[in-house]
Amino acid sequence: MTGPRFTPLIASLPSTVPFVGPETQERLRGRPFAARLGANENGFGPSPRAIAAMAAAAGDAWKYGDPENHDLKAALAAHHGCRPENIVVGEGIDGLLGYLVRLVIEPGDTVVTSDGAYPTFNYHVAGFGGVLHKVPYRDDREDPEALLAKAAEVAPKLIYIANPDNPMASHHPGEAIARMVERVPEGSLLILDEAYVELAPEGTEAPIAPDDPRVIRMRTFSKAHGMAGARVGYAIGAAPLIAAFDKIRNHFGMCRISQAGALAALQDRTWQAFMRRLVAASRDRIAEIARDNGLTPLPSATNFVAIDCGADGAFARAVLAELTAADIFARMPGVAPLDRCIRVSCGPEAEMAAIAAALPGALARARAAQAR
Amino acid sequence: MTGPRFTPLIASLPSTVPFVGPETQERLRGRPFAARLGANENGFGPSPRAIAAMAAAAGDAWKYGDPENHDLKAALAAHHGCRPENIVVGEGIDGLLGYLVRLVIEPGDTVVTSDGAYPTFNYHVAGFGGVLHKVPYRDDREDPEALLAKAAEVAPKLIYIANPDNPMASHHPGEAIARMVERVPEGSLLILDEAYVELAPEGTEAPIAPDDPRVIRMRTFSKAHGMAGARVGYAIGAAPLIAAFDKIRNHFGMCRISQAGALAALQDRTWQAFMRRLVAASRDRIAEIARDNGLTPLPSATNFVAIDCGADGAFARAVLAELTAADIFARMPGVAPLDRCIRVSCGPEAEMAAIAAALPGALARARAAQAR
Repeated sequence: MTGPRFTPLIASLPSTVPFVGPETQERLRGRPFAARLGANENGFGPSPRAIAAMAAAAGDAWKYGDPENHDLKAALAAHHGCRPENIVVGEGIDGLLGYLVRLVIEPGDTVVTSDGAYPTFNYHVAGFGGVLHKVPYRDDREDPEALLAKAAEVAPKLIYIANPDNPMASHHPGEAIARMVERVPEGSLLILDEAYVELAPEGTEAPIAPDDPRVIRMRTFSKAHGMAGARVGYAIGAAPLIAAFDKIRNHFGMCRISQAGALAALQDRTWQAFMRRLVAASRDRIAEIARDNGLTPLPSATNFVAIDCGADGAFARAVLAELTAADIFARMPGVAPLDRCIRVSCGPEAEMAAIAAALPGALARARAAQAR
Repeated sequence: MTGPRFTPLIASLPSTVPFVGPETQERLRGRPFAARLGANENGFGPSPRAIAAMAAAAGDAWKYGDPENHDLKAALAAHHGCRPENIVVGEGIDGLLGYLVRLVIEPGDTVVTSDGAYPTFNYHVAGFGGVLHKVPYRDDREDPEALLAKAAEVAPKLIYIANPDNPMASHHPGEAIARMVERVPEGSLLILDEAYVELAPEGTEAPIAPDDPRVIRMRTFSKAHGMAGARVGYAIGAAPLIAAFDKIRNHFGMCRISQAGALAALQDRTWQAFMRRLVAASRDRIAEIARDNGLTPLPSATNFVAIDCGADGAFARAVLAELTAADIFARMPGVAPLDRCIRVSCGPEAEMAAIAAALPGALARARAAQAR
């Protein structure tokens, strides 16, 4: 009675998880957060039309969702000026990254990313035995030149870049990303994670043909559309690559309610424009709170702001711990020098007021602890 | 510009999918079905409390779901008399089967199942390069003796059995399954798919200790709870095996709305009892329709009925095609001799009346075609 024989790869994997959720922290703390600003969620919520569509779909939850995601893909294709064959819908970008890594990575295959970039991508690469090569950020941005140089060196099957970036909220012009695509080495595929692009300045969306075989773009309803909990992501890429997902994906993996919500959200252009203004105003509000406390907000092309706490990672970690103790859920980048910052999500004024009230004390206590 | 380098395994996989959804058929036909009775969905729908919980959760969809599924796992543990450490929640049994296969199967590893059993399990085994060994059904039931004999021969890492069975709706007493577990060979893990067990006769649930390392049980909210579209499945097994899922699963893969719905459904015992009566009555109604047409309904321990059309697979396929043409969505088993049957899901009287009205003509046309 020894139990199952795991594969050697699985046996070798650590039991770490990419992110600890706020609910887990609340259970450990024994009390709820007053402000939920750590997971880059969009506290302004989904479009009222999306909420209504999801509420209406609840009664139809006895039916499996359409495994082809036909209606949503058709609407997305029209939105992006491509064909449905260029789109695969999945259980968030996290789910799609897992499928993509599985499609191309065997144990020992190389992958290039940035040190400090999205941990869940790294989790999937490790989960299929890939070998990660990391390059540093440059001026708080992902560095296309460094990524390409490393790619020329290690001939990776995958190269990951996010634009705009998480966790720094920085961005490159879309033209710069398009030029990067031109230089992707033969045999490599660029993953362009555009989770936040709808909230970025005009021109951030990279001008890339949907059928370009050198790149696959990741999009989501979690950020600009405020539907993280619905778990709807999609990828745009060349039709043969997109078709390959059908060989392995969980065809009946999508929640029917979420499908309905995403379709309604996509159609609500008025709300999307309103949301961009709400998020822009919230970024300004977070920046103001940071400056009021003598901290430096970094420019943001996303629905969160990285706040430079003005010292090293240990100090920012102390500030974050004090914020947590004051019932504010936030997060911070994992590696230096990015980890001089804490990361605060946009949200309604009640949450902004909560962090504005908590930050001075948190800073004072962190400084006092440092002085000891 | 050749695109990505797929793994050899992926390159070798076919582009087939386990099931074509009814929406796909409707698009191909150019008109909707009048009765949706083919996917073993539960047309009586979710508990009103689950619907209300999901509708209420729609506005909270901006938050990611709890990646630990804490509240749902706690409620499930209490329900099953085990610890939360014995439970993993995932994107339907389909998603959990995919994770489980990934945990143990490498290319060339052997797996034992029955010929005609759940195709999506086979899809996942093929997707990780496993080699399937199949044994035939015996008297329209999965055959524990044959599965164990094959296991003794090929030393599989996984053995699959569903109880009750899909597609035949047959079942074994739980005691027989428990005896089977005692004979699972060292180094093999038994997957006991109990998707339908809440709808089966008393005593069908196998008396197995949750921490027994020889077996993992699959359960779902898709059938008795009528929430197929919400995509909530769970597995019960030994804590070390359950913990291994955390190494690879999509931690943020669960829809927050579905988590809320499942928890409410689990708590609504009144509805569960009502549902068992509704399904039992619907089984009787389907059996009556079959007999009225001179066909033989097989005994059912599920929310569907396999109807023996009295001839071979070609005839049943013709009957199914005629039903489809008459706007009735049904399905049928894929292999002989099971494929002498068509498979009809339980549902409200409107759907029952639709198939009752359509079946005589469908049979007549199928017989006429056969006579030509």
